[in-house]
Amino acid sequence: MKVLVLGGSGFLGKHIVRKLIEDSHQVTVFGRQADKIDIPGVKTVSADFSDTLSLSESLIGVDKVVHLISTSVPSTSNRDPISDIQGNLVNTVKLLEMMKQSGLKDIVYFSSGGTVYGHPQTIPISESHANAPVCSYGVVKLAIEKYLHMYSDLYDFNTVILRPSNPFGPGQTHTGVQGFIGTCIAAALSDNSLTIWGDGSVKRDYVFAEDVAEATISALNYQGSDNFNISSGEGVSLNEIIELVQQETGKSITVNYQAKRDFDIPEIILNNEKARRLLNWQPSTSFTTGLSLTVRNALTMS
Amino acid sequence: MKVLVLGGSGFLGKHIVRKLIEDSHQVTVFGRQADKIDIPGVKTVSADFSDTLSLSESLIGVDKVVHLISTSVPSTSNRDPISDIQGNLVNTVKLLEMMKQSGLKDIVYFSSGGTVYGHPQTIPISESHANAPVCSYGVVKLAIEKYLHMYSDLYDFNTVILRPSNPFGPGQTHTGVQGFIGTCIAAALSDNSLTIWGDGSVKRDYVFAEDVAEATISALNYQGSDNFNISSGEGVSLNEIIELVQQETGKSITVNYQAKRDFDIPEIILNNEKARRLLNWQPSTSFTTGLSLTVRNALTMS
Repeated sequence: MKVLVLGGSGFLGKHIVRKLIEDSHQVTVFGRQADKIDIPGVKTVSADFSDTLSLSESLIGVDKVVHLISTSVPSTSNRDPISDIQGNLVNTVKLLEMMKQSGLKDIVYFSSGGTVYGHPQTIPISESHANAPVCSYGVVKLAIEKYLHMYSDLYDFNTVILRPSNPFGPGQTHTGVQGFIGTCIAAALSDNSLTIWGDGSVKRDYVFAEDVAEATISALNYQGSDNFNISSGEGVSLNEIIELVQQETGKSITVNYQAKRDFDIPEIILNNEKARRLLNWQPSTSFTTGLSLTVRNALTMS
Repeated sequence: MKVLVLGGSGFLGKHIVRKLIEDSHQVTVFGRQADKIDIPGVKTVSADFSDTLSLSESLIGVDKVVHLISTSVPSTSNRDPISDIQGNLVNTVKLLEMMKQSGLKDIVYFSSGGTVYGHPQTIPISESHANAPVCSYGVVKLAIEKYLHMYSDLYDFNTVILRPSNPFGPGQTHTGVQGFIGTCIAAALSDNSLTIWGDGSVKRDYVFAEDVAEATISALNYQGSDNFNISSGEGVSLNEIIELVQQETGKSITVNYQAKRDFDIPEIILNNEKARRLLNWQPSTSFTTGLSLTVRNALTMS
C-alpha cells in the first residue's frame, strides 16, 4: 500500500519507514527535514506541517497516513502552550479536514504514553486510566485523540492511536528528556558531564524503536479505531541507565544532579496487554539488548 | 469581592451577574456586547475575547474570574473546528497565561455537560464518565478543562469547572438547539412553525438559569479545583416541551419534523450528586415552574 509518513525523517520515523520499505510498501515521507532521509526507495516532501498546499498534494493517491510530527516536546511545551496548540492541534485538525474532503480515512497517530495520563493512580497504567496531563504537550496530544475519535464516530475514519512510552534505539539523537538514553550515551562518549533533574530514581518505561516500528505495521493492518499503549511494561531508573551505559561504553559519567522539576512524575510504566491482545504485538527486544545495540551503533557513528 | 464575568451579557451570564450584584459583589462584564447589559451597578468592557490588551486591563484588581464566553455552538462547531479552536481554546489559554502572570488564580469555567461525555454509557451521567465528544465544541471544552487542571496542578490555580446541562429561563433568546425552549416559545407566540430534528423523543436535562446562577456563587466560594455537573437530574423530551409550551401559551404549534442529525444523542441526563454534596447546591425550581416563569416573561416582552 501507499503510506504517507508525516515526520518520517526523525529518529523513530526512520525505523518505521525502514520497516515499511522492507514490507514492500510505497512510502512518502513528509516533514521539514524529509530530504535528509537516507533510505533508498523513499519519496520525500520537504515542507513544514503548516504548509497546507504541500500537505494536500502529498495526500493524493495515498492509502494510509502515519502521523508522528510534533512541533513541541514535553519538557518545554509549558513555556509556550499557544505555539503548541497552533503547531500541533490546529495543523492536525487541518490534516483531518483534508483527509475527509479527499475520502482518505485511515490514520495511525502517535500520541504519548508518557504525558496523556498525568500523575499515575495505578501502575502499570492501562488505556482506561484517567487523563489528567500536567504539560501542554500531553493536553494537545489528548485533544488530537479526541478529534480522531470524533472523526471516527461521525465520518467513519479508522483511527489507530499509539501511545508509546519512551522509544529508544540506534540513531537516537540527544534532545533532552525525551531522549535520555541518547543524551547519556553522548555524555559517556564525549566525556561531558550529564545533568539530570532529581536524584535519578525517576523510573520510565523504555521501548525499543524496532518494536515500535513493528507495532506501527500492526496498527496499519488493524480494522477499526482504538488506542494502544506501546511499551515494555517495565520500569528502568535514570541511575540504572547511567550504570548500564558506563558498563557498555567502558567510560565513567560525571552526573550533575539538579532540583527536580514540577512536571516530572516519579514513575510511569504502561500496561501493554491491550496491544498484545488486539494488535497481536509484543515487545521482542529486552532493555539490556536494546541498550547494547544502541551503544554499539553510537560507537560506529562516533 | 471583585468578579470579572467573561460573557456576562448573554442569557445565562445576566442571571449570574444579577445574583452577584444581589450578593453585593463588584462586577465587571467583559464581552462583545457588554454595553448592552441593563443591570445597574455593573461595569462593562465591550471587547472581543481575542482582544488581549482589553482583557489584560480588565483583569487588574479582580479577585475571581467567571468565564462563560463561547464563540461557537455544538450544532455548528463541526463545520469549522479550526475557528472553534482559535476562538475558544487559544483565547482561553491566553487568558490563563495572563492570570498566571498577574498572580490571579481563581476561575470558574463554564464547560458543557451536554457535549463533553459523548454517547452516554450510563444514565444519569456522572463526572467520572468517559469523555468522548462527538462535536468540536465538546472537544474544545474538554481541552480547556485539561488546561485548567494543569494550571491547578502546576501553578496552584483554583479552577472550578461547571458542566451545566441545558440552562433555560426568562430572557432566553432562540439560538438553535442550545435554546430549544426559547425557540419553542417564540414559535408559539409568533405563530411560526417549529423545526426539530428527529421524532421529538430526544430527551435532555434542563436546568433553570436561576439555579445555575446559584451554583456559580457556590463555585466561587468553593476551595479547591474540581468539576461539577449542574443539572436537574431529570430528562424531558422535545415533544413534552412542545406540549407544555402549548398549554402555557394557549397556542398551537405546527411542528416540522426533519431527519435526525449524526451528532444528536438520544438521551442526556446528568447526575448532580457531586454538586449537591461538595458545592452544597441543589436545583430548586421544577421544570414546569421554570417553564411557566419563562413563558410569562416572554409574554411580557412580546
